[in-house]
Amino acid sequence: METKLFRQHGHQFVDWVADYMENVENYPVMSRVKPGEIRAKLPACPPQAPESMDSIFRDFKEIIVPGITHWQHPGWHAYFPANNSPASILAELLTAGIGAQCMVWQTSPAAAELEDVVLEWLRQMLGLPEGFVGVIQDTASTATLCALLCAREWATDFASNEKGLSLPLVAYASQETHSSVEKGVKIAGFGKENLRLIPSDDEFAMIPEKLEEAILRDKEKGLRPACVVATIGTTSSTAVDPLAVIGRICRRQNVWLHVDAAYAGTAAILPEKQWVLEGKEDMDSFVFNPHKWMLTNFDCSAYFVKDAGRLVRTFEIHPEYLKTGVDPLVKNYRDWGIQLGRRFRALKLWFVIRSYGVEGLQAFVREHIRLAQLFKGWVERAGNFELMAPVHFGVVCFRLNDGRDENALTQLNKTLMERLNATGEIFLTHTTLRGKYTLRFVIGQRTTEERHVRHAWDLIASTAEELLRK
Amino acid sequence: METKLFRQHGHQFVDWVADYMENVENYPVMSRVKPGEIRAKLPACPPQAPESMDSIFRDFKEIIVPGITHWQHPGWHAYFPANNSPASILAELLTAGIGAQCMVWQTSPAAAELEDVVLEWLRQMLGLPEGFVGVIQDTASTATLCALLCAREWATDFASNEKGLSLPLVAYASQETHSSVEKGVKIAGFGKENLRLIPSDDEFAMIPEKLEEAILRDKEKGLRPACVVATIGTTSSTAVDPLAVIGRICRRQNVWLHVDAAYAGTAAILPEKQWVLEGKEDMDSFVFNPHKWMLTNFDCSAYFVKDAGRLVRTFEIHPEYLKTGVDPLVKNYRDWGIQLGRRFRALKLWFVIRSYGVEGLQAFVREHIRLAQLFKGWVERAGNFELMAPVHFGVVCFRLNDGRDENALTQLNKTLMERLNATGEIFLTHTTLRGKYTLRFVIGQRTTEERHVRHAWDLIASTAEELLRK
Repeated sequence: METKLFRQHGHQFVDWVADYMENVENYPVMSRVKPGEIRAKLPACPPQAPESMDSIFRDFKEIIVPGITHWQHPGWHAYFPANNSPASILAELLTAGIGAQCMVWQTSPAAAELEDVVLEWLRQMLGLPEGFVGVIQDTASTATLCALLCAREWATDFASNEKGLSLPLVAYASQETHSSVEKGVKIAGFGKENLRLIPSDDEFAMIPEKLEEAILRDKEKGLRPACVVATIGTTSSTAVDPLAVIGRICRRQNVWLHVDAAYAGTAAILPEKQWVLEGKEDMDSFVFNPHKWMLTNFDCSAYFVKDAGRLVRTFEIHPEYLKTGVDPLVKNYRDWGIQLGRRFRALKLWFVIRSYGVEGLQAFVREHIRLAQLFKGWVERAGNFELMAPVHFGVVCFRLNDGRDENALTQLNKTLMERLNATGEIFLTHTTLRGKYTLRFVIGQRTTEERHVRHAWDLIASTAEELLRK
Repeated sequence: METKLFRQHGHQFVDWVADYMENVENYPVMSRVKPGEIRAKLPACPPQAPESMDSIFRDFKEIIVPGITHWQHPGWHAYFPANNSPASILAELLTAGIGAQCMVWQTSPAAAELEDVVLEWLRQMLGLPEGFVGVIQDTASTATLCALLCAREWATDFASNEKGLSLPLVAYASQETHSSVEKGVKIAGFGKENLRLIPSDDEFAMIPEKLEEAILRDKEKGLRPACVVATIGTTSSTAVDPLAVIGRICRRQNVWLHVDAAYAGTAAILPEKQWVLEGKEDMDSFVFNPHKWMLTNFDCSAYFVKDAGRLVRTFEIHPEYLKTGVDPLVKNYRDWGIQLGRRFRALKLWFVIRSYGVEGLQAFVREHIRLAQLFKGWVERAGNFELMAPVHFGVVCFRLNDGRDENALTQLNKTLMERLNATGEIFLTHTTLRGKYTLRFVIGQRTTEERHVRHAWDLIASTAEELLRK
């Protein structure tokens, strides 16, 4: 394709994206296709001859778009958000156009130094301790794996990298921890049996006394407690583990403290939410995802460490073909994580922070938290609904509860969710809390306004009423 | 920013990218900034108030672009390529605009099914065995780590995931293997001491007899040989390990065979290069990067496995909040790798394959291989140059050699490389082969034509002459 054609289609696609942003509300949030439906429309073999961009674009609109679940829809109340923004999309266009691969400083100095600067901006915005340094990872799963690996090396005096893992190491997280911790302990060689899931309290936060008991028990058995993963904003209910107490235990017991704030970390840019980071001085590593609730296109996960030396020592490699003349003077981010190759992801973060300003981002997050409180109030005041967990951020856990038995309640709420999602107007997902089937209503999309939340509640209430009438 | 403004800046940026593609030749390939120079131009603190996109874009052009090393420059002869294309950039724009996160089928059915289809297209294009199934990973480092983990689980009957790694497992690769294998064996808990680097022959390919000897030696010691990583197209010199013989050894000795074809895999779309895959039936897993030499924006790594069940069993997790009603009917790619969250990367691959057609991609790769042979001929015919390795694909390893001693030759070639890179017209990097400092001339950019390669050679020859005259 010649540049002239690129220009022409580029303009066409920009208009399509702009139209999409304006009209996303008119699509069904969750795609209505059935398994196999999209595949059946696609040829089983690749084309031998070139096809025109007009024909590719037509298929994109006719075949692909109906199979998209619209994360940027104002009725997106599922999982956690992965919101984007005009500024972020624009930056992604430039990133793709430049096509730089940013594995070492020399392969794009601006990418390396912008990443350094923007992560320091984030550190300040969140009020993380001075001296913490950041690096962009793709996802919090990867960042948490990095933390487990750093903890492993630190706990074995960097011998596991050399000799392989022999000493049984133990990791700790609450019962409510994210599945990436289980995945991480498997990959890092700890083994799932050496992950202790610590009981949580009535608010689904880790009970620190139970943590310390577990650590002591393992030490008595001759095991080596290596890493505690505390969560700020658990996936099921956004519970906040008590960082200050957990941090003191980790210092006392000499265990690495990793904090997973993948979703809720963004809230720490608000002075009134700084409490979630109380005790932050005792963290060894911390992750939050600007790609969740900070208007930055997926993927962009911000991983911070107290001691960059430990991180680099865990991951550094020095093949001759990657050596450059400036290595002692610069940060080569290839040694700050698992992957060698790296996209230029700092650019979109820079665009977003500058385009909104810290105040703009604060206003954005604060509004979602206000809307969640509003929704929570409606749940509490409605006769047949039950609030299932405290509401700290933009997520409300609730269920319909007219007093029938647990199995019937599960079925009732499952049906409610399926009916709501089938409307195409909203999309929400479920979890279980203490074994109880629970609906999660998440407010985190850029486009979600009070009118959308009100409409969602009306829809939920009326659908529930209909169900109960039967 | 309102949609109107997005539209306006979107058009402006598309034109900037088009201009950039037209003018990339006029930039110095390798950025000329000094360490710290970009950082010094950026504010130490984030802005409180929003800034205009005009001002952000001005800074992008004035501060960032001079710090970019231009991977899409026709004079890019460094590392391996990471070429992009108009079709791929256009797809990235749509991907960013839609902003879908594709962790499970339900969160975007079209992304899951398109990935399935396009990876099957790639399987056919490369002539991989029927039944092999593919999944997109971010990089080959990650894919190779996945392979080591699968091998680990398979070799320990999936007990390592559960109980942690206890049995000492051994991995094997040639002396010329990529650094990601060392990184992978560390992460997966094998330990660097349990990675055997098998000697290579005169062409830098693994000597299979030495591999089998090493495996037998380890078995005698009571160790468990778990994984062999064979390379098709090593990073230093694009050597090709003899897959057929290695495959038979792996079957005989019951060891997992992973094939790293990150760069050279693309060449297998040519009938005349199918020989590199001879013995492919014995592979357990295979990776190549469309983001290197197949016009697809970084990141996009295609990972294929013989038995998807083993891959899924290694990585699957089943938290309640990720369960959907269609799980038994669909592929949930969250269980096909390390990360949970996933970008919609299949779209750009689909755009590229359709836009070029198989024939267009073949012509593209074939031309680079022709140009490399041309360059190789010039090296061979020039008096003071030495060819350092066979030329199988688009990489020529050579050095200036006027007969002085090895230390002096290293210094001479280092100086030659630095002078060439300082011209801003070309960018090449180095490696060592049997301890000898070697220059790598890589041809793989979309924009690189014969005239560029001729000009590069003239520049190399004249700079060398100048150096030798002194």
